[in-house]
Amino acid sequence: MKWKTKISFDKDGEHYIRGKSLIGLIEKYSFVWALFLVILGQEPSDKEEKLMNAILVSAIDHGISTPSAYVPRIVISSGNDVNAAIASGALAVGERHGGAIEKAMRMFKNEKDASSVVSEALSKNEILPGFGHKIYKEKDPRAQALLKKAKDLGFDLIFADKAVKIEEEIRKQKGKKLPLNIDGAIAVLLCEMGFDSKTGKAFFILARMPSMIANIIEEMNEEKTYRRLNEEDVEYGG
Amino acid sequence: MKWKTKISFDKDGEHYIRGKSLIGLIEKYSFVWALFLVILGQEPSDKEEKLMNAILVSAIDHGISTPSAYVPRIVISSGNDVNAAIASGALAVGERHGGAIEKAMRMFKNEKDASSVVSEALSKNEILPGFGHKIYKEKDPRAQALLKKAKDLGFDLIFADKAVKIEEEIRKQKGKKLPLNIDGAIAVLLCEMGFDSKTGKAFFILARMPSMIANIIEEMNEEKTYRRLNEEDVEYGG
Amino acid sequence: MKWKTKISFDKDGEHYIRGKSLIGLIEKYSFVWALFLVILGQEPSDKEEKLMNAILVSAIDHGISTPSAYVPRIVISSGNDVNAAIASGALAVGERHGGAIEKAMRMFKNEKDASSVVSEALSKNEILPGFGHKIYKEKDPRAQALLKKAKDLGFDLIFADKAVKIEEEIRKQKGKKLPLNIDGAIAVLLCEMGFDSKTGKAFFILARMPSMIANIIEEMNEEKTYRRLNEEDVEYGG
Amino acid sequence: MKWKTKISFDKDGEHYIRGKSLIGLIEKYSFVWALFLVILGQEPSDKEEKLMNAILVSAIDHGISTPSAYVPRIVISSGNDVNAAIASGALAVGERHGGAIEKAMRMFKNEKDASSVVSEALSKNEILPGFGHKIYKEKDPRAQALLKKAKDLGFDLIFADKAVKIEEEIRKQKGKKLPLNIDGAIAVLLCEMGFDSKTGKAFFILARMPSMIANIIEEMNEEKTYRRLNEEDVEYGG
Repeated sequence: MKWKTKISFDKDGEHYIRGKSLIGLIEKYSFVWALFLVILGQEPSDKEEKLMNAILVSAIDHGISTPSAYVPRIVISSGNDVNAAIASGALAVGERHGGAIEKAMRMFKNEKDASSVVSEALSKNEILPGFGHKIYKEKDPRAQALLKKAKDLGFDLIFADKAVKIEEEIRKQKGKKLPLNIDGAIAVLLCEMGFDSKTGKAFFILARMPSMIANIIEEMNEEKTYRRLNEEDVEYGG
Repeated sequence: MKWKTKISFDKDGEHYIRGKSLIGLIEKYSFVWALFLVILGQEPSDKEEKLMNAILVSAIDHGISTPSAYVPRIVISSGNDVNAAIASGALAVGERHGGAIEKAMRMFKNEKDASSVVSEALSKNEILPGFGHKIYKEKDPRAQALLKKAKDLGFDLIFADKAVKIEEEIRKQKGKKLPLNIDGAIAVLLCEMGFDSKTGKAFFILARMPSMIANIIEEMNEEKTYRRLNEEDVEYGG
Repeated sequence: MKWKTKISFDKDGEHYIRGKSLIGLIEKYSFVWALFLVILGQEPSDKEEKLMNAILVSAIDHGISTPSAYVPRIVISSGNDVNAAIASGALAVGERHGGAIEKAMRMFKNEKDASSVVSEALSKNEILPGFGHKIYKEKDPRAQALLKKAKDLGFDLIFADKAVKIEEEIRKQKGKKLPLNIDGAIAVLLCEMGFDSKTGKAFFILARMPSMIANIIEEMNEEKTYRRLNEEDVEYGG
Repeated sequence: MKWKTKISFDKDGEHYIRGKSLIGLIEKYSFVWALFLVILGQEPSDKEEKLMNAILVSAIDHGISTPSAYVPRIVISSGNDVNAAIASGALAVGERHGGAIEKAMRMFKNEKDASSVVSEALSKNEILPGFGHKIYKEKDPRAQALLKKAKDLGFDLIFADKAVKIEEEIRKQKGKKLPLNIDGAIAVLLCEMGFDSKTGKAFFILARMPSMIANIIEEMNEEKTYRRLNEEDVEYGG
């Protein structure tokens, strides 16, 4: 079987990523800078590097209650290796956990105007990905912080305009405010920087890795026994 | 079942990580800075942030030939979601692929002196993790670049001394030079910054995420059919 | 968090599955018999037990070339535990590898008639799941063997009639014979026995487990080094 | 890269497993019969087929409380495909959940006598895998049912003798009865039939597949929202 790639190659004992020597990258660049090179094949501008940092920090941890945080703890507690626990964390991400970013990216890149996007979703009784939040009824402060960062850095924010229009249409057509949430803001900004919609869940997992690692280490160091449910957690209804 | 944690909590609709507001982190800090806070519960110094960047860049991609790069391509080609493909990449990491970092960390933190460490390993016919390379017989330039970075940044490098001693003992006892390799150098520097040996594979996977993402996207965009082996790849010997 | 279930419970130190004592099941029934009880909550008839055996045997192994067989070998070769290797085999299954069973089940259970099912698929340029095979242009002998088994056992085969009609419509509308293949035949028979379409991939993985196990053990016992691609497998095109 | 195998091959459009035509297997044999052929390369005797059925039934489900049952429910609830959920179930198995079978197999195959096996384990403060149970202080009825089945079928039970001796030594050296449990009995019987210790976790996962499937389907059909922990499940202690 043939494996074709444009990402990297070895020559004379040196490794080159998108044509650049790995040694040179180690000396000069940050991890986030190099991430653009690896994924997009392009060097980021200074403001892109900064914005990506803000995006990744915004999703770095949302507490032990999210499946991507507590599932790796279960798997490590059963007696597995750290890489298996991280794999289970990636599997715990899904359409309803981190998946809104990808779906919102597709919606923002969709050529239809905001009005049709919203009316079509409402007619099919579908959720509008990237909008609405249990607690934040008016504004999601994390989304605001991200967008402010992007504005301060001087981004054009073409996709943010589309998001604003969709938010307005939701209010009009649904008669209720559903503010752009953190997933929606991340989606807007990944679109601005030219990323493929397919990277949505991937960036979410990358951002969440420090939280997975912290949870795995905490479980290994602080908990003794393996994670079976207790009797009071279970309700038999057969 | 109870889930205890010291990592983060929510209060009045805001998320706090190790006591710090997430909004504040988004505004002020880089992803790598925040990674220290999440995992160690401590703010990194400027030089620690820079060194971690160098470590993560050094492991960001080693080509399509490594299992963590080509396995996710197979899984995405079978028709799976991106998070499942990333999970398979984490599973493709193991004792022989990325695992040397953790083992070298344990060896460097081991209280035994270099001479005993080497003689015990040789007597059990065990490999010395973090030493030796197929191509680099004298020096691994990536390891050198990482250690130089650490020196330039002003690190004390207590564990690097141990590594030098082990290298010398290998030469003495085995009669052959096995230079500190990239895994060994990463292990030395993670030890210097106070990380738990258990994080070895985890940092490897985190660093390798951009490569996994690039490979998954390239496979989705450039390849049409699913990855079955060809007849000429297989040798039946029953 | 509450976990409700109708599957099983413990009482006075004994385990009951769908109301039956596990000890009694061990004494009296086969694994395939018990599988019906666990999944459907019903005891199978003798002919259902026999048909399920034929289905599972038909998918038990299709060679080392399929991703679910060779991916677990890569993962075990990197130095992982057997359960991680099996997990990677489950991840290597997907829409294009085992996924046709679920899709064909949905199609056979769809209330639309054969003519509309085929014309709609052709108009959207979609593949008809469960039909066609690279080598078997007229008849897939494995599908034939399965259907013959079902007839000999005395099944009514309502869904098989639908499959025959779809095969005829494909010939009419596409001007080309695409015979019911093994995935299609399995789908027909799972429908006949009342299984949910969602179980399609699950039965495929269950059936394929002995092959995964055999491949993992063979890799551990016969191969020495970890599975990196060779230089001649890779083509750099950057 | 070369892939060598003795398991199966294709010839003239037919698939042969360990030299036998797949079509013939579909017609004549049960799944459990075929499992021996695939994994061991040998046809089972009638009593071996029956004993394997009893083993697999004995581990088919132990309730929703075990990680391999409830973790797949979390992963499916996050919005993932069934194969990803099954993969997470395999990852939830580990040293402390299903792992005792493999360890007990190694112990029973170990050439040391029962007295040394027990004294060495006790001196290292290690658990004796396959012995002891929270509830069953005198006898584990599931282990008894399995061993009785083996005796009734006419097995020699060489490894069961070793297990009895280890049980006696535990009572002598530890002053406390730890009866052979279900994991231990499965281990004994897999040893009797010539399986590699490495298959321990694999048979556990295979046996548990119907329970995983039932749990995944129940979650999809009965539960609406995704599985975040509730506030009362979490205790912040930072």
